[in-house]
Amino acid sequence: MTEKGRVTLPIEVGMDEEIKELMERLGADAVRNSDGTELPAVASELFAKVYSTYFPARGDNDWAKSRPLDRTHFYLMSKRIPALTEGELVIDVMDGYFAQQVSPDTDVDVTKMWQVIDRTTGETISPSKWSLVDDSHVKLAEAIPGHVYTVNFFAKQMWDSTQMYNYITNDWHLDPKRCKEMPYDVRIPETWEHMQSALKQWCLEHPEVDVVRFTTFFYHFTLVFNHVGKEKFVDWFGYSASVSESAMDEFAKVYGYELTPEDFVDEGYYNNPFRSPKPQFLDWMDFTHRFVTEKAKELVKITHEAGKEAMMFLGDNWIGMEPYGPYFPEIGMDAVVGSVGSAATCRMISDIPGVKYTEGRFLPYFFPDVFNAEGDPIGEANRSWLDARRAIVRSPLDRMGYGGYLSLAVQFPDFVNRVEQICEEFRQIHIQSEGIRPADAPFTVGVLNAWGKIRSWQTHMVAHALWYKQIYTYLGVIESLAGLPFEVKFLSFEDVENGVPDEIGVLINAGSAGTAFSGDLAWGNTQLVTTIRQWVADGGAFIGVGEPSAYQQNGAFLQLSDVLGVERETHLTLNTDKYHEVTTDHFITADLAEAFDDGEGGGDVYALDENTKVLAMKDGSVQIAAHAYGHGRAVYLSGLPYSSENSRLLHRALYWAANREQTFENNWHCDNIYTEVAYYPSANKIFVYNNTEETQSTRVHGHGKVWTAILGSAGSQWIDLNENPGEAAAGDNPVSAII
Amino acid sequence: MTEKGRVTLPIEVGMDEEIKELMERLGADAVRNSDGTELPAVASELFAKVYSTYFPARGDNDWAKSRPLDRTHFYLMSKRIPALTEGELVIDVMDGYFAQQVSPDTDVDVTKMWQVIDRTTGETISPSKWSLVDDSHVKLAEAIPGHVYTVNFFAKQMWDSTQMYNYITNDWHLDPKRCKEMPYDVRIPETWEHMQSALKQWCLEHPEVDVVRFTTFFYHFTLVFNHVGKEKFVDWFGYSASVSESAMDEFAKVYGYELTPEDFVDEGYYNNPFRSPKPQFLDWMDFTHRFVTEKAKELVKITHEAGKEAMMFLGDNWIGMEPYGPYFPEIGMDAVVGSVGSAATCRMISDIPGVKYTEGRFLPYFFPDVFNAEGDPIGEANRSWLDARRAIVRSPLDRMGYGGYLSLAVQFPDFVNRVEQICEEFRQIHIQSEGIRPADAPFTVGVLNAWGKIRSWQTHMVAHALWYKQIYTYLGVIESLAGLPFEVKFLSFEDVENGVPDEIGVLINAGSAGTAFSGDLAWGNTQLVTTIRQWVADGGAFIGVGEPSAYQQNGAFLQLSDVLGVERETHLTLNTDKYHEVTTDHFITADLAEAFDDGEGGGDVYALDENTKVLAMKDGSVQIAAHAYGHGRAVYLSGLPYSSENSRLLHRALYWAANREQTFENNWHCDNIYTEVAYYPSANKIFVYNNTEETQSTRVHGHGKVWTAILGSAGSQWIDLNENPGEAAAGDNPVSAII
Repeated sequence: MTEKGRVTLPIEVGMDEEIKELMERLGADAVRNSDGTELPAVASELFAKVYSTYFPARGDNDWAKSRPLDRTHFYLMSKRIPALTEGELVIDVMDGYFAQQVSPDTDVDVTKMWQVIDRTTGETISPSKWSLVDDSHVKLAEAIPGHVYTVNFFAKQMWDSTQMYNYITNDWHLDPKRCKEMPYDVRIPETWEHMQSALKQWCLEHPEVDVVRFTTFFYHFTLVFNHVGKEKFVDWFGYSASVSESAMDEFAKVYGYELTPEDFVDEGYYNNPFRSPKPQFLDWMDFTHRFVTEKAKELVKITHEAGKEAMMFLGDNWIGMEPYGPYFPEIGMDAVVGSVGSAATCRMISDIPGVKYTEGRFLPYFFPDVFNAEGDPIGEANRSWLDARRAIVRSPLDRMGYGGYLSLAVQFPDFVNRVEQICEEFRQIHIQSEGIRPADAPFTVGVLNAWGKIRSWQTHMVAHALWYKQIYTYLGVIESLAGLPFEVKFLSFEDVENGVPDEIGVLINAGSAGTAFSGDLAWGNTQLVTTIRQWVADGGAFIGVGEPSAYQQNGAFLQLSDVLGVERETHLTLNTDKYHEVTTDHFITADLAEAFDDGEGGGDVYALDENTKVLAMKDGSVQIAAHAYGHGRAVYLSGLPYSSENSRLLHRALYWAANREQTFENNWHCDNIYTEVAYYPSANKIFVYNNTEETQSTRVHGHGKVWTAILGSAGSQWIDLNENPGEAAAGDNPVSAII
Repeated sequence: MTEKGRVTLPIEVGMDEEIKELMERLGADAVRNSDGTELPAVASELFAKVYSTYFPARGDNDWAKSRPLDRTHFYLMSKRIPALTEGELVIDVMDGYFAQQVSPDTDVDVTKMWQVIDRTTGETISPSKWSLVDDSHVKLAEAIPGHVYTVNFFAKQMWDSTQMYNYITNDWHLDPKRCKEMPYDVRIPETWEHMQSALKQWCLEHPEVDVVRFTTFFYHFTLVFNHVGKEKFVDWFGYSASVSESAMDEFAKVYGYELTPEDFVDEGYYNNPFRSPKPQFLDWMDFTHRFVTEKAKELVKITHEAGKEAMMFLGDNWIGMEPYGPYFPEIGMDAVVGSVGSAATCRMISDIPGVKYTEGRFLPYFFPDVFNAEGDPIGEANRSWLDARRAIVRSPLDRMGYGGYLSLAVQFPDFVNRVEQICEEFRQIHIQSEGIRPADAPFTVGVLNAWGKIRSWQTHMVAHALWYKQIYTYLGVIESLAGLPFEVKFLSFEDVENGVPDEIGVLINAGSAGTAFSGDLAWGNTQLVTTIRQWVADGGAFIGVGEPSAYQQNGAFLQLSDVLGVERETHLTLNTDKYHEVTTDHFITADLAEAFDDGEGGGDVYALDENTKVLAMKDGSVQIAAHAYGHGRAVYLSGLPYSSENSRLLHRALYWAANREQTFENNWHCDNIYTEVAYYPSANKIFVYNNTEETQSTRVHGHGKVWTAILGSAGSQWIDLNENPGEAAAGDNPVSAII
């Protein structure tokens, strides 16, 4: 087939001929500028849509300067300062912060917008007992020696966090055209008016632009720098920079109660997603989501009225947009684009409801850090594609694209060849599947945590797709699910506490103790544990990863230890003797050729008694356990970093837990775990793909038949079942050469 | 010198000549039988004291059988049983227990002495809602589906735990003379009368015995077996077997409130020493300690009246004796003997106040498990001696001895030769030191936990000196201290919350989060943290090991994070960027030649800011940190398994924390960390000893002088400073050949 399209190319000035040739080769039907660069004139001559970045809440620094009170704000906390002597204690709130980014705001009612808290007792100190020495020093008249104090302070954001990062990283101080862009707050009526008129004007001035790519809208995720201008605190989900005095006033009117600085500062944890969310914070999210989507809707309307599409970049100023939030579909956004760092981040984009299309930015960016003599751009492109393809098969992105400097990429012709192949393979998934998702999910998997739907595919994440030692063990669950043949829903504890939805076949609770992902105090809720116990006992299924249902109470650390058949050793049960026998031959571990890799593991875990089948152990601790519970089943996994081995293990664990292991053999799967298969009933085709950069021979099982395929590095194969019905027996049936 | 004595030899029948020869060679001045064996007639002919084991609360099985109601009792908990359907729930309390050991006692008011608890809500179920089906089944009329229930049940102890273990292990069922010994409770007046008269009679019948070695008195530590007769639960400090209906009644009279079964069962944790002790349990310990010591005092009196000494074996039925408890000295016990498994267990015996002498049982026992062709009895003897010697130097045991079958040991003449050397070296420590402890402690170290003095040298222990993966990381602190030149006190949080005692130079808090050793909720006490902060700020010193002061509250996990300069990553601060620079050149780590071994470590730990000096890191986590705090200092160590390296590290950390590092060089120490030195001012001698089985060359520093010694495997050297004044400069001064 020769259909083209679905691909966006970054272009730049001075390479018009190469652009035309590459458009043809890659089948690109859209072009875009890179952030902060201009589109070349050739753009409007191409038979392609033209995207252009647009920043509603920064970029017009003349406006910003003319409105010094319109800065967006942060709520921040000073260091924890102990009082070591009797008498006065002076706290420098700016100690550890970057003065070019953060400016304490004392033009407000500080008795309301600032707070001094005794962190030894948790008490808020009456404003009558402290005062401002100057803009950044608070004096506490009579501190108690031996107590630790903090100041929650309200501060102006003097420099947009992302622009600041780019400015510092790229030495933009050397470029006289660059300025330090100050963000302005959409809540100020004049600024809001300005945002709308500026967009209208911009649309008029840019007839060549078909798609306005908003980056993003109004409030940046929490990204704060330290006294030497390095990153101090980053929370890709953080709402700390969405605050203002007027917003807090409005909130009080709508929700009937007032928030305090501490509701944002949250003991210094700033309501990060690992914290079990407090009702106040959930209310604030709702409030901000509602407000931001209302305003975004207006800008989208202006965009549409100008005859352009509105596209949202999932990042930067995306706070309050919440693509899985209740108000998002009302915006009428045409598209969402986001960076694809893994299968999970791919699904985070491709599953977004309420938009016409989704687009993934693939790696590597055409930047000098990869495109140099030592770099491996082809390898990076392959790995990015392999990660993403698993997700795309299950839930296709509508479009793909790259970013960076095209002039750099064309110096690597082998890379361009590989990208050409990837673009074609991407299109073929849409063409061959006839636009219908594969239908081989035997049931829906529910991922259970404190956040539920609003953090779909966004769990255990600190800063987008960055690796952290403490999260990869859990992210692997999500990464596996992103490419496995199951429907996946993200459920909150509230969603299930009065009954698990009918469609759910298996509930997964994965996370470390004391976090929102494991659940922490949610498991102290009798209603929740009672419902889940009954549901499992009635034939449901529960998979716990790491420290599932962890909450020390009433003689158990894992509150569902009776369901899981295992308990965590917290050093309170060292006196209890543990006897373990490992069952090496089990359905769940049947494809596990080597020792189970559980990443950082789930701490010391032991089986409660001989009714728990232990399937893997390390250093005396249970890594995998299977347990029958009434008519249902439970599986414990100590951790599940992503790998083909672990993804298959989860695949099997889900079948076993759901009491469907008898059906696994004839359900669609490959015997070679480094390959996967998707089945498309209406097209009557299967798609087999190799998740590795080595050649793989695999046997595809499904419908009682077997197909054999040999797939080259990162290769894939469409098999039309009308043409190739497979073999009923277990014989070899090579349907393809290496591709 | 040719002085003899201080050594006890186990003897047996049929080897009279060998006994006499060995008595001479080892300088033994006492002999003993092994548990359960008779003394040979030769005993009374020897110029030696004769010890004999004696069991007050078991052994007379005719008496036991005649008094079926006099069994000692346990409080035990059934398994946690979920109700999975509506209606009745029947719980088999004996599921998982050994019927030969445990017999549910239903001859009591079960509505008071048994309890059914809903472990989902924590509520105690009214006795009107449950009933006994038979002796071991409880029926709950209306269980709530999805809730988990347990039964706390009162049970008779039908078989003494240690005798049962020996019986099963040694196949005593083949020996018709052996019976299963049933324990009887000293609280029963008739049994108490019998105990006294039996001891009187026994003393009369055993004129050859000089020392009655009580094994021990009345209540066994908690040791419960499972349904197949294997160990199920072991707590060397457990009081679960000290209960009875009359004791509980008496308790209520004395303490003014009633205890419930749950006060003993403690959610199934049975108040094990890793649990932060509840006031009720501390009251029960006090109550039992008072009662047991009163009764023991009477038996000691009978012993003395018979012209014999009373010796207590620290083990088996030692519950309530509490050698560091307030009432222990009143007993008038002559001696305590215990097994020496480490330096810490050696100090646990040698530091006991209120006795005339202490005696250590050294390893290996003369048993076939070591004394065989593959065994290494000399190696075991050396390692036992090396471990113990460090402690003996600091706080001498008065006597030493071995146990087991002498007939076995004499088949290994090289072993006997080595034991002869060890006995002589042991005596020389007493002779050369002139009975005065070395005087080189610059200050007292306070080990701070929830238990304090009563668990002196007994911290972090599950079952005497047994190794557990979860404890060795912390036991190393105690093991190091047992041989380091500091005075050591064990302090409870109550001991310091209103002020740290003057003598304390450094406080150490070592343990894992959520345990009594770290402190758990004690750190939620404002008074405690305030006092310690002020004390450190005023020039005190705090060393935290593992998860010190851990208690999640008010934005901190380590409540003294401001003092320590580090915080534990509990996944709530992943969003905070961490910047670490390792200082490789520091006083504390000056002798650390290789990577620091922190055992299981203390989890992910990070420095709060650049004021914290990070001295060692692993996998991104701080292992050693030093922090100034006001006029004081703090050190964090992620773990400290015992080794010569880590003992030296602690030695230095104590000096640094106490702000005395300037004095270290001239205070007594060896530059070779595998050797140690003790200084005896009144004798004007130093004792240098090699803690390894390899030859070590070392330079001893002290008083501005230097001495050089070369010490053979496990060797030691006394240096008389009058004869050898050392060299002022750093020159070589070999004072000894290999010995």
